[in-house]
Amino acid sequence: MATLGDIGVAAGINLLSAFVFLLAFAILRLQPFNDRVYFPKWYLKGLRSSPSRSGTFVKKFVNLDFRSYLRFLNWMPEALKMPELELIDHAGLDSAVYLRIYLIGLKIFVPITFLAWAVLVPVNYTNKTLELQLKNVTSSDIDKLSISNVPDGSDRFWTHIVMAYAFTFWTCYVLLKEYEKVANMRLQFLVSEKRRPDQFTVLVRNVPPDSDESVSETVEHFFLVNHPDTYLTHQLVKKRKSKQNWLDYYQLKYSRNNAKRPIMKTGFLGLWGKKVDAIDHHITEIKKLSDEIAEERERVLKDPKSIMPAAFVSFKSRWGAAVCAQTQQSRNPTLWLTDWAPEPRDVYWQNLSIPYVSIAVRRLIMAVAFFFLTFFFIIPIASVQALATIEGLEKAAPFLKALIEIPFIKSVIQGFLPGIVLKLFLIFLPTILMIMSKFEGFTSISSLERRSATRYYLFNLVNVFLGSVIAGSALDQLNTFLKQSANEIPKTIGVAVPMRATFFITYIMVDGWAGIAAEILMLKPLIIYHLKNTFLVKTEKDREEAMNPGSLSFNVGEPRIQLYFLLGMVYATVTPVLLPFIVVFFGLAYVVFRHQIINVYNQEYESAAAFWPDVHGRIIIALLVSHVALIGLLSTKHLAQAAPLLITLAVLTIWFYRFCKARYEPAFVRYPLQEAVMKDTLERARDSNFNLKPYLQNAYIHPVFKEEDDDEEEEVVKLENESVLVPTKRQSRRNTPVPSKMSGASSQSLPEAVPEHSVP
Amino acid sequence: MATLGDIGVAAGINLLSAFVFLLAFAILRLQPFNDRVYFPKWYLKGLRSSPSRSGTFVKKFVNLDFRSYLRFLNWMPEALKMPELELIDHAGLDSAVYLRIYLIGLKIFVPITFLAWAVLVPVNYTNKTLELQLKNVTSSDIDKLSISNVPDGSDRFWTHIVMAYAFTFWTCYVLLKEYEKVANMRLQFLVSEKRRPDQFTVLVRNVPPDSDESVSETVEHFFLVNHPDTYLTHQLVKKRKSKQNWLDYYQLKYSRNNAKRPIMKTGFLGLWGKKVDAIDHHITEIKKLSDEIAEERERVLKDPKSIMPAAFVSFKSRWGAAVCAQTQQSRNPTLWLTDWAPEPRDVYWQNLSIPYVSIAVRRLIMAVAFFFLTFFFIIPIASVQALATIEGLEKAAPFLKALIEIPFIKSVIQGFLPGIVLKLFLIFLPTILMIMSKFEGFTSISSLERRSATRYYLFNLVNVFLGSVIAGSALDQLNTFLKQSANEIPKTIGVAVPMRATFFITYIMVDGWAGIAAEILMLKPLIIYHLKNTFLVKTEKDREEAMNPGSLSFNVGEPRIQLYFLLGMVYATVTPVLLPFIVVFFGLAYVVFRHQIINVYNQEYESAAAFWPDVHGRIIIALLVSHVALIGLLSTKHLAQAAPLLITLAVLTIWFYRFCKARYEPAFVRYPLQEAVMKDTLERARDSNFNLKPYLQNAYIHPVFKEEDDDEEEEVVKLENESVLVPTKRQSRRNTPVPSKMSGASSQSLPEAVPEHSVP
Repeated sequence: MATLGDIGVAAGINLLSAFVFLLAFAILRLQPFNDRVYFPKWYLKGLRSSPSRSGTFVKKFVNLDFRSYLRFLNWMPEALKMPELELIDHAGLDSAVYLRIYLIGLKIFVPITFLAWAVLVPVNYTNKTLELQLKNVTSSDIDKLSISNVPDGSDRFWTHIVMAYAFTFWTCYVLLKEYEKVANMRLQFLVSEKRRPDQFTVLVRNVPPDSDESVSETVEHFFLVNHPDTYLTHQLVKKRKSKQNWLDYYQLKYSRNNAKRPIMKTGFLGLWGKKVDAIDHHITEIKKLSDEIAEERERVLKDPKSIMPAAFVSFKSRWGAAVCAQTQQSRNPTLWLTDWAPEPRDVYWQNLSIPYVSIAVRRLIMAVAFFFLTFFFIIPIASVQALATIEGLEKAAPFLKALIEIPFIKSVIQGFLPGIVLKLFLIFLPTILMIMSKFEGFTSISSLERRSATRYYLFNLVNVFLGSVIAGSALDQLNTFLKQSANEIPKTIGVAVPMRATFFITYIMVDGWAGIAAEILMLKPLIIYHLKNTFLVKTEKDREEAMNPGSLSFNVGEPRIQLYFLLGMVYATVTPVLLPFIVVFFGLAYVVFRHQIINVYNQEYESAAAFWPDVHGRIIIALLVSHVALIGLLSTKHLAQAAPLLITLAVLTIWFYRFCKARYEPAFVRYPLQEAVMKDTLERARDSNFNLKPYLQNAYIHPVFKEEDDDEEEEVVKLENESVLVPTKRQSRRNTPVPSKMSGASSQSLPEAVPEHSVP
Repeated sequence: MATLGDIGVAAGINLLSAFVFLLAFAILRLQPFNDRVYFPKWYLKGLRSSPSRSGTFVKKFVNLDFRSYLRFLNWMPEALKMPELELIDHAGLDSAVYLRIYLIGLKIFVPITFLAWAVLVPVNYTNKTLELQLKNVTSSDIDKLSISNVPDGSDRFWTHIVMAYAFTFWTCYVLLKEYEKVANMRLQFLVSEKRRPDQFTVLVRNVPPDSDESVSETVEHFFLVNHPDTYLTHQLVKKRKSKQNWLDYYQLKYSRNNAKRPIMKTGFLGLWGKKVDAIDHHITEIKKLSDEIAEERERVLKDPKSIMPAAFVSFKSRWGAAVCAQTQQSRNPTLWLTDWAPEPRDVYWQNLSIPYVSIAVRRLIMAVAFFFLTFFFIIPIASVQALATIEGLEKAAPFLKALIEIPFIKSVIQGFLPGIVLKLFLIFLPTILMIMSKFEGFTSISSLERRSATRYYLFNLVNVFLGSVIAGSALDQLNTFLKQSANEIPKTIGVAVPMRATFFITYIMVDGWAGIAAEILMLKPLIIYHLKNTFLVKTEKDREEAMNPGSLSFNVGEPRIQLYFLLGMVYATVTPVLLPFIVVFFGLAYVVFRHQIINVYNQEYESAAAFWPDVHGRIIIALLVSHVALIGLLSTKHLAQAAPLLITLAVLTIWFYRFCKARYEPAFVRYPLQEAVMKDTLERARDSNFNLKPYLQNAYIHPVFKEEDDDEEEEVVKLENESVLVPTKRQSRRNTPVPSKMSGASSQSLPEAVPEHSVP
């Protein structure tokens, strides 16, 4: 166990490295040639253009204005300056609410920290238990401030119980207020949002096959009968699978061609073959390819077999859509499944046609798979690690023997390889979980991410938190827990928790302080951008792709934050020394991510904060874990009355969770009719001549088929403006949110000329 | 442990007593003077009249036709003869589906019994484990047929595992088919039902207060705005509470007066005071009372404070009601809560106005209370039992000392009192659970009964099943389980289960054979009826009340049946000898209850089999308990591979449950729009001029206020037909189901003359 001094040194080192990262960031971001890395969002929104267009050659790359370096930390107040409403407008509600997770961390832990230091630290410190056991090597300065320093059976433990109540009540109060606020923000956002196709549209799955009618006719008839007053139109979902490969292949070829050099050889990789004028060659090539694409697309559209038993059904009013999404349509609840249509950008097309029973089976398989992944992942890892030893490698690849025997390489293998194997697994874990979610058949990207986040959180809870506390693999834990009696389990956790405080403090500093500071420096995107920019970028579109930072990945980020909530809750009563470290993490991360969201990340979709119930639920889990740990700890301290009191607290917390779920979760799942009517009435009054049908006609088209329409639309533009070979901004729009200032998804609305393949 | 011979003797005794009961029933039911006890349903339906009107005096009371005694068991085929569709018509879907619970027991256990006796019994019997341990006193003949006879680690256990799979799959298959069947029956019933008010009506609770508008205006405005095309009318719910006492008091007085003798004294109990002509006296008395009642009612109706924030809102079509019931109305999900209106008979009026937060708190309190009731009920019982000893009584009531010291009384107190205290508690338990459910705020009688049934089942599972297996109070078990490790718990159960087989066989014979036979004899109602008939009955109405058998109480009956499912499942693989006893129970109970439902019980309400998901879920619980027990048992038999296989089986079972829940439960909760539209269209075509508004206007009126309208309606009839003092059949209608043959709830539809206090 470390002394306070050790912690101080570690804190110094981590603060220093965080400071170095921040300094490097401050300098790098001021250089014009990095501008696209640190402010890509503004470029993608079209609000910022390369600063390199004017000025001297040097000025294009290096900022020589020394005054700007003096204000090198002013990105921080700048990041905080943008008001929340503007932020919602700028980056979407998802991002704005994501930031509130950090804010809620501050709101919860700042008062708790003050209270804990004012009350618990003095209460703990003024005991002499640990001094008496001077011989005990495991005690340290930090332990003197923790609950370990209070003698067994002391009445002072009542302070801890009272504090546990106070902390829980305060957390629940903040959670309640925040849930209310976020639910209001969501409803406000949905109301104030301009007309969007998903407000009028319902996703219908499992359309039953009909031998007499085509899918389109079946859908139309069904909804004309069952929603006679509100049904407007529908779009079918085309099957991509079988035909997709060819389309993809052609499209890839098509886009690749744009990036090739003007003069090239026609042979393999342009290394041999006769030289031809590249532009001429490509014009013919592209002509051929686009003909093939069109042909293939035509074939898909005409093939009745390529139509999936799913449709996007649009209604005349939000009321109609709200009614259809919330009701059961058919006698058989596995047919005609209706649900809110996700945003067009948010649709996960591959999963729209999975039959009901198949989904049920897939969920079962994935639940079992996840159980094994969580508790038994260590087995394959260990066997790979066993292979990754000297002997293992020599056996597996005898020809490497000479190489391996070199002492330096040997020590590298022995020292790092097992660790790297584990690290690699952990890096790929979110991807594995995402694949599992996709297999389960969710129909929107946002729900895929939420599911993955839940699983990642559980994995972390078991393997990182419990794994560190009890110091063993999840498999060992499972064994321990199975063999222990029900009231031994909290004891095992409770006893181990205070002993691991210093470990977690170090963890917070490395992962939470330096890690967050490294996040803002964006070293990887920076290097990749410059590499791409130097060697690959040919056109404006390429540059846009190179600088695209992607979106904030909820499925990785949120579970990581939740670990801090968990640590904060568990240690608040046990080792309050840990709390300031948590507070610093939340403060720093809030500023950094606010900056990143304003300037860098570009959300792929907008789910209107649909993830908040998950966030709320996991903070409740953190509270419950803290209660269990405290029950366990106090039961070893000979305070029998503690358990019933703390069990009461846990029951109250669960009740609070259920209350909030019933009170606020509907706002994230359903759409109240009152709101729908209000909005409908308003819009009818304001804009009574608007023709919804063409607006909704093609809102939901698979991106592959959509290209066609875009192409037609833009070919005209292209021919007039630019070289034929350079595609326009079209590609980038894929990543740009529909500008909410303009009237709806104008970029999705298409000219009437498009063949109407979906409406009979 | 009993030998096979002992079991045979016990079986003989119980069979004999069952036979005696059946014989007594066969004789008693043929006596005309018992006719109203054994066929009250037919009387209440008006399809049977007293046989005593004609014939000689003796024939009025005793059946002298000896031929009828020869066919004394012919009620059995008669009970089975009525086809199910007719049964639904006669007794309602609830009763018909209730019978299917027994039928499903037969469907599950008959094949399982054959399979178990064909495979498991020989496998168990051909071992010699128990013979070798001849000294072991606990082994018996029955044990030789059970799994205990198979030696540790034997490969023969694979038979048991395979059988566990076979039994589980068979049960799940039957459950699936049955769920499908019942769901179809329910939908069919709802469709084929004639027009009923609840098809068009939604119960709206938590109407927010509005300072400018009355509740009625608020409701009307809200629904006119949010359901503009379908809203028809609404009825407010009047508060009874504060004013109710007076009404009740007057009404009681009013009805009491009818029962008094023609000549009486005006003083206390008619024992002194001056003699007056009773009829004259009562006419003036009644006049006074009914004036007061009318006045009081008027006051309640006019008082705006007596209107509760709840309303029954009716729609123009079933579609409109289905939409409103399934959607969220307001931004705040705790306001404007909409749900299907229960049948008018099924409404539990007292709970309609409980605010949302209050309900949440009540649920928490009751959950905690139920936990303590289940696990700690033994504490107050024990303390009362302690008081009910000689010493306790002498201390509490010293003046009884002389009496208690008499040896006979002393031994009675010592022998019976403690048992009686426990028995009394168990008799009152369903009532206690019902009160708890009422406190929780459910709004229909059917949901109250379902909730109580769930709790009663859990109580039985813990205290009767586990309590008998582990032989200790629930409190002891809780202690044992908390102190045992997770994989010790199944072992504890598994080891104890085979040892308790004989106990449960005896239990089944006493409770399931003789008990069911006693049920049909209806000794208690028989005695009560004759007592009442002799001493109290004055009028036809009194006689109807005296013979009213009440309804089948789901909250007591269903949990009792479930105990047999549980025993059957658990012992199917362990001690197959028990299975035939279960089969006999299900067969006998099916016949008996089919007879009772046809001839005796009179359902209070019709919930269209809304309880089936609960029945299904509890049979699944029985399966899971059986898996746990088998896992525990086999893990003590040194068969390590068994556990993963059986855990897989349990996981599959849980998955099956979830699948069924998603697939079939919506049929019991929601009302598919397709059905609603179909029915609406049909009805519009058939009966296009029907005016719904007056039909629905007064369908939902609190019984107290309803009486008024009935009175007005019937006063005319009364004056014309009968003596003023004898109320007409009005009272009995309360217990009669709305005849489904006639066009809807005609008995609830009222003349237009009724003052419209509910519609603005």
